[in-house]
Amino acid sequence: MKQSASHPFDDAMQLSADAPGQYRGEAPAPYWNMVGPFGGITAATLLRAVLRHPDVLGDPLALTVNYGGGLVAGEFQIQAVPVRTNRSTQHWTLAILQRGADGAPVVTTTATAVTAVRRDTWSAGDSPAPDVPRPAELPAISPAFGVEWLKRYEMRPVAGLLPQSWDGSGDHSLSQLWMRDDPPRPLDFCSLAALADIFFPRIWLRRARQVPAGTVSITVYFHAGQADLAASGDGYLLGQARGQEFRNGFFDHTAQLWNEAGTLLATSHQIVYYKE
Amino acid sequence: MKQSASHPFDDAMQLSADAPGQYRGEAPAPYWNMVGPFGGITAATLLRAVLRHPDVLGDPLALTVNYGGGLVAGEFQIQAVPVRTNRSTQHWTLAILQRGADGAPVVTTTATAVTAVRRDTWSAGDSPAPDVPRPAELPAISPAFGVEWLKRYEMRPVAGLLPQSWDGSGDHSLSQLWMRDDPPRPLDFCSLAALADIFFPRIWLRRARQVPAGTVSITVYFHAGQADLAASGDGYLLGQARGQEFRNGFFDHTAQLWNEAGTLLATSHQIVYYKE
Repeated sequence: MKQSASHPFDDAMQLSADAPGQYRGEAPAPYWNMVGPFGGITAATLLRAVLRHPDVLGDPLALTVNYGGGLVAGEFQIQAVPVRTNRSTQHWTLAILQRGADGAPVVTTTATAVTAVRRDTWSAGDSPAPDVPRPAELPAISPAFGVEWLKRYEMRPVAGLLPQSWDGSGDHSLSQLWMRDDPPRPLDFCSLAALADIFFPRIWLRRARQVPAGTVSITVYFHAGQADLAASGDGYLLGQARGQEFRNGFFDHTAQLWNEAGTLLATSHQIVYYKE
Repeated sequence: MKQSASHPFDDAMQLSADAPGQYRGEAPAPYWNMVGPFGGITAATLLRAVLRHPDVLGDPLALTVNYGGGLVAGEFQIQAVPVRTNRSTQHWTLAILQRGADGAPVVTTTATAVTAVRRDTWSAGDSPAPDVPRPAELPAISPAFGVEWLKRYEMRPVAGLLPQSWDGSGDHSLSQLWMRDDPPRPLDFCSLAALADIFFPRIWLRRARQVPAGTVSITVYFHAGQADLAASGDGYLLGQARGQEFRNGFFDHTAQLWNEAGTLLATSHQIVYYKE
């Protein structure tokens, strides 16, 4: 497959540094969702700010992003501050700001991150990858609706597809799909963070009703190291998400992301607003 | 049961306000763990700072606490800032600071929280409470080791107890237990946050080896409203926790907390450091 010189994901991650921890970027049109950029690209961009900070220690371990308000088109600023550095872990606070209608900066997004220097230790999983058909055995689906960011990902659903009719017939909230960047791009921590937010709102599946919904807060725990990313290459990840509770305007889900070899690269959780 | 006029949990939650969002407290000896207060009481105290802020909007929805370093005995400061207030959600950033050896303030803990005004909507669960014996059918256990905070909770394990011998025989990481404050105390959002961190490190169960371990970051999603808390009273909560991945010095777990009636009050996740 012919690829352009720069991948849209790398374009979206472009940040200019005004000072260490002070960055500027542009809300990326190719990753636009309904009212602002896809939440996953926002999470990835915050992580990018951490990773390009000159003082960063180690690799990403945990990232929590709170979506206070949608970004609008145009420039944004990121503040990334390493507030505490230990021997092997580093704690970050982050914010995205944009100028409001009156010209004053407004916080759209807050976040915290932890990075860590990891050592080889005893390791084991308690979440084996489910036994599902391989990506090549499943068709890639077309974007389910007309938003830009869906065109940036190849998705091959295994189970729990978007309902074919919104008839209120839903009875579960489990989805599994193979996924990767489109065009393919070697996996890194930022693209892994973005992929963790790829799941459509669980409420749509559970209710088979397409009510308005939007992520309020997402957390990603990174289990992968650099070697796991390299081993994943530009292959597919198997993503799985399941809602836990839908209550009075908010639901949460848990998610797991394995590579094709069955290595669990990341786990994630989010809480999502929905409207009756 | 005779109760003293003030509950140790309420004593631990005492904060003095220097200004809105600027609070002082004392690291609570009755909730001491091995090297600092029990992480759950720290999470609860941060939430308390949010809830007593004069500008707070609604009830807790999400709380993420990052443990940068253990608190030491003595005074601490909490900064709680409502950085963005929407129509029905409010986004908070928080930090705990203590004076270091040189007298300068040091950040020990960072956190973010989201509060929300919730409305009655269509609701459903996808995490029914497991079918387990009732609390009265199970014995309360003595604190497994000599730390103060364990004396503040009554625990009636159902499954996945602390291993009786550290012989490396572990093969899973699932624990279930009934739990409540000791002495009993009516549940509120702060005590629910603390209870979300009650689980001993999953690595101890999975390996049947008591290696050094400590929470790095915890997230709690609140599904309960005030009516659910009132209905829970001072009864037991059923807590369940299961590790997902143990890898190169860190593992994560997911957890659920139901009340005796089977209502899912909170879900939680954490990532924990462990030493080989």
